[in-house]
Amino acid sequence: MPSISQRAIDMPASPIRRLAPLADAAKQRGVKVYHLNIGQPDIETPEVALNTIRSMDRKILEYSPSDGFRSLREKLVGYYDQYQIKLTSDDIIITTGGSEAVLFAFMSCLNPGDEIIVPEPAYANYMAFAISAGAVIRPITSTIEESFALPSLDRFEELINERTRGILICNPNNPSGYLYTRKEMNQIKEMVKKHDLFLFSDEVYREYIYTGSPYISACHLSGIEDHVVLIDSFSKRYSECGIRVGALITKNKQIRDAVMKFCQARLSPPLLGQIVAEASIDAPRSYMTHTYEEYIERRNCLIDELNKLHGVYSPIPMGAFYTVARLPIDDSDKFARWCLEEFQYEGATVMVAPASGFYSESGLGHNEVRIAYVLEKEELKKAIMILGEALKVYPGRIN
Amino acid sequence: MPSISQRAIDMPASPIRRLAPLADAAKQRGVKVYHLNIGQPDIETPEVALNTIRSMDRKILEYSPSDGFRSLREKLVGYYDQYQIKLTSDDIIITTGGSEAVLFAFMSCLNPGDEIIVPEPAYANYMAFAISAGAVIRPITSTIEESFALPSLDRFEELINERTRGILICNPNNPSGYLYTRKEMNQIKEMVKKHDLFLFSDEVYREYIYTGSPYISACHLSGIEDHVVLIDSFSKRYSECGIRVGALITKNKQIRDAVMKFCQARLSPPLLGQIVAEASIDAPRSYMTHTYEEYIERRNCLIDELNKLHGVYSPIPMGAFYTVARLPIDDSDKFARWCLEEFQYEGATVMVAPASGFYSESGLGHNEVRIAYVLEKEELKKAIMILGEALKVYPGRIN
Repeated sequence: MPSISQRAIDMPASPIRRLAPLADAAKQRGVKVYHLNIGQPDIETPEVALNTIRSMDRKILEYSPSDGFRSLREKLVGYYDQYQIKLTSDDIIITTGGSEAVLFAFMSCLNPGDEIIVPEPAYANYMAFAISAGAVIRPITSTIEESFALPSLDRFEELINERTRGILICNPNNPSGYLYTRKEMNQIKEMVKKHDLFLFSDEVYREYIYTGSPYISACHLSGIEDHVVLIDSFSKRYSECGIRVGALITKNKQIRDAVMKFCQARLSPPLLGQIVAEASIDAPRSYMTHTYEEYIERRNCLIDELNKLHGVYSPIPMGAFYTVARLPIDDSDKFARWCLEEFQYEGATVMVAPASGFYSESGLGHNEVRIAYVLEKEELKKAIMILGEALKVYPGRIN
Repeated sequence: MPSISQRAIDMPASPIRRLAPLADAAKQRGVKVYHLNIGQPDIETPEVALNTIRSMDRKILEYSPSDGFRSLREKLVGYYDQYQIKLTSDDIIITTGGSEAVLFAFMSCLNPGDEIIVPEPAYANYMAFAISAGAVIRPITSTIEESFALPSLDRFEELINERTRGILICNPNNPSGYLYTRKEMNQIKEMVKKHDLFLFSDEVYREYIYTGSPYISACHLSGIEDHVVLIDSFSKRYSECGIRVGALITKNKQIRDAVMKFCQARLSPPLLGQIVAEASIDAPRSYMTHTYEEYIERRNCLIDELNKLHGVYSPIPMGAFYTVARLPIDDSDKFARWCLEEFQYEGATVMVAPASGFYSESGLGHNEVRIAYVLEKEELKKAIMILGEALKVYPGRIN
């Protein structure tokens, strides 16, 4: 039998997905599993969106345009305008989730062997898309001690060489919840200009910024408009991760033309998802406010409860709905596994995402986990209490 | 500004999409355009599928499993069993359209520089997915004189070298409508075995086989189960191209594990599309029969009308809903363009797909077009009549 590709061998297996069968097994044993590991919110999708799909009168579910419905792209222009991101509908290409936007950005901009610099911890699937395009991620570690702020420019400069083609940021950040400051964004801008780089900016969590600090989009940085590729998604904004609708946005026509070739090859983004997405933009302000306030409360509750636990530390995330917390443990992979396989407290346990999956260098994140606050407050409280009980008896506890 | 990737430059721009603005302009001038160019059927999506989505009571449109809903995969087992394709649900991975199945198959099986042999004319986007994976398509030309039958084994053997990793077929074929015979499929099997190759088999048109000849799936070939990757899609079967749901099917666990890494990176296939797809499998037999009979009638009508035109020749397609016809013209690209820009007959014109887009070697297909019979009979008749009028006055007419 012929063997699979080296690329497939190099592709990281999702660390969270590896734990999924253990969670299933725990549930089969009757143990309740609190999912602190996933980015699937329990918030309801806007009713207007669900009603639109229910009252759809199409008779044929046909292809949509490769760059998505014009009506959706035009409506998005107004959405971005609220954030002082000035676009025309031509700047926007609808993709099959933010995932495809990342893949097509890499495919269009990066040659095999090209390097991009990514502050870590970082969303694990960037690595998968980079490998798909044959590109190399050069990580720069940000640390929990500095609340995962942007590493110093010197550290970027050290990594930049003739193969460096871009910088990728996620802002607000998954997994750390960090929000880049105006000063940091300007520093990034200067590097992008100085070294003629692409700036890939994943900003799917812009709705969830909690500190009053301003949201500085890569699209706000003047003078590098042709370098910026914005990655976006409807998934988290309207709690509709399943519709698989995102966007790739750039003022750079050459990049758009390149991306469109990949879009045309896959024919069209999901029709029904686009119908939901377009209707979601009409969600009432109260929906957005309610969701926002819900996350603020959960965040406050989570961070309070976490930091009360002996030996646990979490910085205060400024955005998104995750935090990376340091636990008094030997190895977060082992701990996550142990929680599912060997531990329970009053019939329940927790599933956390080992932070090692968010770093490319092995050994990093071994005492950190990502916790998503996508459960309602009372559930979240119980889950953190159980995490505390687990830490008390975990055999690999340190100190 | 940093430049785009070589891969993006190499990606073919869709020849049909290039014509689209010309068709739009013609419509703006008030000219009716008969679309003979596209694979978007005018058949309605099964009502049971539309009703299922209309009565959906989900409150959260959440991620589905990366390999698709188990219920959908289990239902597909029964569907394939009707075609004597024996599977378990584990053999089936749900993808975002057949397109993603091709991309993930190539990504998982082919290294950059690896070669696959593809009989041409062939679906143009295979080339795009091969370029995405850095793989090389080695075409073997089949000819209209032989009704696009499988080229001789010798011609395959000439192309096989140490970089050859697979053969890709589309059966029944888009664009030619050819259906591979049992003898041809056995020949392919022997080559696959002898040279230890992958066999990628795109069989999305299996419902549309018109001649009474048996449908021989790659999955029917015994002894090469571990070599076969079946590409499938709901799009054409149930006239629901927009839902973006397909499948990658293989008995080879190593390939499945590799493909799953790519699936996990993009999180999940479209949720709503899967709901539609699953319900579509319950479409009544009358739906399938009606659709089938409709295509048979259209095919007969199309081929009759085409072959009546002086200087035009189309073989009789045995499956799918396309034919490749030879026209008495100098250049099918120019002709297609001319029909949209300069010609009209009683306020109407036709849009055809130049066959050059289905061959990788330049110069081939210059006097061939692909015609899709996705319009109802009367419309189709009118369209072919107009094509005939166009051929009478086209300045680049030959003979």
